Amino acid sequence: MNPARLAKLSASLRTFQPASGQVAGLDALALNPCPSLVYLTGLHFHLMERPVVALFTPDDDPVIILPELEMLKVAGLPVHAFPYGENPAEWQAVFRRAVESLGLDGKRIGVEPRALRLLEFRYLQAAAPAAAFPDASETVSRLRVRKDAGEVAAMRKAVQIAQSALEATLPSIKVGMSEKEIAGELVIQLLRHGSQSEMPFAPIVSGGPNGANPHAGPSDRALQPGDLLVIDWGAACDGYISDLTRTFAVGEVEAEYAKIHHIVQEANAAGRAAAKPGVPCAEVDIAARAVIERAGYGPYFTHRTGHGIGMEGHEDPYMRGDNMQILEPGMAFTVEPGIYLPGKNGVRIEDDVVITETGAECLSDMPREIRVVG
Amino acid sequence: MNPARLAKLSASLRTFQPASGQVAGLDALALNPCPSLVYLTGLHFHLMERPVVALFTPDDDPVIILPELEMLKVAGLPVHAFPYGENPAEWQAVFRRAVESLGLDGKRIGVEPRALRLLEFRYLQAAAPAAAFPDASETVSRLRVRKDAGEVAAMRKAVQIAQSALEATLPSIKVGMSEKEIAGELVIQLLRHGSQSEMPFAPIVSGGPNGANPHAGPSDRALQPGDLLVIDWGAACDGYISDLTRTFAVGEVEAEYAKIHHIVQEANAAGRAAAKPGVPCAEVDIAARAVIERAGYGPYFTHRTGHGIGMEGHEDPYMRGDNMQILEPGMAFTVEPGIYLPGKNGVRIEDDVVITETGAECLSDMPREIRVVG
Repeated sequence: MNPARLAKLSASLRTFQPASGQVAGLDALALNPCPSLVYLTGLHFHLMERPVVALFTPDDDPVIILPELEMLKVAGLPVHAFPYGENPAEWQAVFRRAVESLGLDGKRIGVEPRALRLLEFRYLQAAAPAAAFPDASETVSRLRVRKDAGEVAAMRKAVQIAQSALEATLPSIKVGMSEKEIAGELVIQLLRHGSQSEMPFAPIVSGGPNGANPHAGPSDRALQPGDLLVIDWGAACDGYISDLTRTFAVGEVEAEYAKIHHIVQEANAAGRAAAKPGVPCAEVDIAARAVIERAGYGPYFTHRTGHGIGMEGHEDPYMRGDNMQILEPGMAFTVEPGIYLPGKNGVRIEDDVVITETGAECLSDMPREIRVVG
Repeated sequence: MNPARLAKLSASLRTFQPASGQVAGLDALALNPCPSLVYLTGLHFHLMERPVVALFTPDDDPVIILPELEMLKVAGLPVHAFPYGENPAEWQAVFRRAVESLGLDGKRIGVEPRALRLLEFRYLQAAAPAAAFPDASETVSRLRVRKDAGEVAAMRKAVQIAQSALEATLPSIKVGMSEKEIAGELVIQLLRHGSQSEMPFAPIVSGGPNGANPHAGPSDRALQPGDLLVIDWGAACDGYISDLTRTFAVGEVEAEYAKIHHIVQEANAAGRAAAKPGVPCAEVDIAARAVIERAGYGPYFTHRTGHGIGMEGHEDPYMRGDNMQILEPGMAFTVEPGIYLPGKNGVRIEDDVVITETGAECLSDMPREIRVVG
């Protein structure tokens, strides 16, 4: 339980502003096992077929509905627990008692649609058939979006672990290795260098034409001379993550590939330089994108310039050309422009940045120039 | 795309039987990125803030709504793709066009509540406001629950990788090591022995009183002489997983701890012996539980005896005393009785079993007797 964060949540629930002209304020927030639950309570649960839901209200201790076999996790905590046994036929009644204990039927229960599954939602809805379930993602995001010093320290460590792990992996990368083999070695090095064993995401290791697919998973394709090699990886430390990308040359590469690498490197620098308090997220995207557009590769930069980062790999704020959210000190996000030439190669260079009172701190400092591997 | 599995799905949609007295049959199945989607199509997507939904109907090629930057994943496949750009304001219209292309408004669109998030569901619901969204989990589960020879082979490999990895880890376990350190070393060994880098779940490593919490995450607690040490771990291979548990003695342990270990070992054997085609899942649970109850520890075995296993760690069929589902050849599940003494220690012994034409094959064969580590 984090009393300071719970107090802030209570205030946010009272002042919640819905998207359109509805009543302001929320009577409760319902969370399933997800980063926001960890943020508020420190409680970790597996996301499984047994639903776990915590209900937060402005004035009462949180209520939590959970399997009996998880009860030790909440022992001694200031929560009202509603445990259920192994027979799913009994679960709905437990949800009903929990919702009734807070008098929530007919009330406004905020939810996070990105995290809440239909599983938990349908139990909640059946327990409170007259309740409304507005999207409270922004309310929760506002609490989490400005990282405090402890959170930034954890992210800084996660960046350092990631960088050391990739440096330790690079010497072992050879022509003929598969993307999967490289990814496996990188994960081992991440663990050796101190990452939590639950990785933030599986590393992307994409050579040659696979690199032109920004979200390709590692394949059995063997690394070939002349490939570009995109490595998008991260570590987790104290519950916070890093998310970086560097692109390498496997021996000598065609002139166009070296050129697009250079353009992306300049775009990355321009995006980082645009990051400061008081400017909208859009400016970071526009600054990075302008470099790539001026070089004639605009159509090959097919995604936004970055996303927020913290407990999750993708969270607010998003660096999109249409996002007018204003950057504030403590906001942390990636800057990751790319150029993707279908059927040929791809380049992406990604850093993790935190807005400070006067500008931005780049947490990552691994060389961005094209380096030869293999 | 897996045409044979898609053909079976089409037949299942036509014959879908709802829980209560509603109309039979489904007009479509909607899946987000999840194991069932991989099972039917081989397609992997990150689960993120950008919604991805595939719609399967009995007669048409699948429709898939996805970000433009994921389009390479479906290039050349027999699917109708509805890509969207980076601005969320445009996504709803793309969902509407996709749903309209199949004429699904007002129809019955099955969903998997355990996987589908409110994010995807609300886009679907707004795109087809007159549609019904019945729970189709059982329909999909029926397709997946009987594993074919290729699937069993992958699970067998995942078991072997897990066993070799733990054997390689055991010599390094010493008094004074933290649970987290042991878990880190085990994950490294899992990767060295060939597990996919995306683990099925983070290993549970619980010493002493932590072992009395069946779902504890690894902590900073240092291993102490006299502890029992529960290790619940698994590997992933070719998209299929293993899930095993063994309990060790850290040096000499109190007589009661050795005794409960022996009881659990007998309960595990009884559960495995009860597994055969034609009997209900309940019999496996009852057989294992009877051993523990006879020994007077019934109240300390606080969970069901096992769960199905395959692409997921928890799936059908579940070994619960009230589950009358009949075991059939190809069904795969865990047998994992335990005894948990709050504040003291816990024991769990877990194996992976596949039902055959005549009985059951236990995929795991690592010694189950209490072994001393540290």
